[in-house]
Amino acid sequence: MKRNTKQIIIEKGAEIINLKGFHHTGIQEILDAADVPKGSFYNYFKSKDDFGLQVIDYYVEQFAMLLDKTIKDSTLSPTEKMKKVLLFFMEFYKSKNYAYGCPIGNLSQEMGDLSPVFSEKLRNAGDAMVDSCLVLLEEAQKTGEISPQLNLRETTYFIISSWHGALMRMKVEKSLAPLENHYRYVFDYILRP
Amino acid sequence: MKRNTKQIIIEKGAEIINLKGFHHTGIQEILDAADVPKGSFYNYFKSKDDFGLQVIDYYVEQFAMLLDKTIKDSTLSPTEKMKKVLLFFMEFYKSKNYAYGCPIGNLSQEMGDLSPVFSEKLRNAGDAMVDSCLVLLEEAQKTGEISPQLNLRETTYFIISSWHGALMRMKVEKSLAPLENHYRYVFDYILRP
Repeated sequence: MKRNTKQIIIEKGAEIINLKGFHHTGIQEILDAADVPKGSFYNYFKSKDDFGLQVIDYYVEQFAMLLDKTIKDSTLSPTEKMKKVLLFFMEFYKSKNYAYGCPIGNLSQEMGDLSPVFSEKLRNAGDAMVDSCLVLLEEAQKTGEISPQLNLRETTYFIISSWHGALMRMKVEKSLAPLENHYRYVFDYILRP
Repeated sequence: MKRNTKQIIIEKGAEIINLKGFHHTGIQEILDAADVPKGSFYNYFKSKDDFGLQVIDYYVEQFAMLLDKTIKDSTLSPTEKMKKVLLFFMEFYKSKNYAYGCPIGNLSQEMGDLSPVFSEKLRNAGDAMVDSCLVLLEEAQKTGEISPQLNLRETTYFIISSWHGALMRMKVEKSLAPLENHYRYVFDYILRP
């Protein structure tokens, strides 16, 4: 029960932060959206910063779970699995009217120059995202679906980093075109035999 | 003289906005940084939003001027010109301790979901950046430095969008590694014969 309330605060709060930015969002606003009584915020979080840092942990965990589930799908080849993950997010953003973007990317952008604590957390979060995806590229290299020449860590890093750039553009273009363009270049030019 | 003061306000203001975000920056803070008397802000800008929109125009213009200067350098091949532009920005960010990022990307991230006026301006700004770079890719395709198969607009769009993602990561990593990785993938996998 307690854990559930905390999760609701994180999810609803992250939604507002993604839309408005971390500094531009008040704690009261988060509690209102989560429909949680005033004052209960500090039962779960030491401070607004602590809340922000836990949002990052939560999304890294969610991303790892999604990847893990896809990796275990034995009906798909490694490349098909990667495509499935990207298409899943495209569907998600379409359903959200191309808003929000990725909490890790958004907070990197906003907090990178302002808080060493956030920077370190976000650096680790980015690395964790790379780790989660790396397994798929390793599989793909073993099956020959992608070039044996590719440095897998650098490649994964580039795919995720350019995905964050595409999300940035999606937010002003209000269409899937930037993500579709990213998908095309990743699979036509980088992830190929 | 008047124009000069305006330009100083834009440059100093953009620096703070790039560091702290648009909403998180006050007009007084901008005027203090620009060393301009209180009240003079409204001689140049109708509102804070108007200021933000003019920051975008200013940077699009600066970018176009930089590109134009590089395009005219007849000692370099088209691909060398593109490399020169990216290396110029890498030097710039190194000198700024990997802070700031790009005003167009930062504001797309922050304002994309909040203001249709900013979104439209930023969409056009992104398109203008693509237009500025497109000439170089056209040249490179003519000289055979890059593949005749490449769709030049989509390719330019992908390079700029993934550059913005790399800048996002640079801000938390506090190193050039994300930009160097971007450079490598762009030239090793996309911009080649």
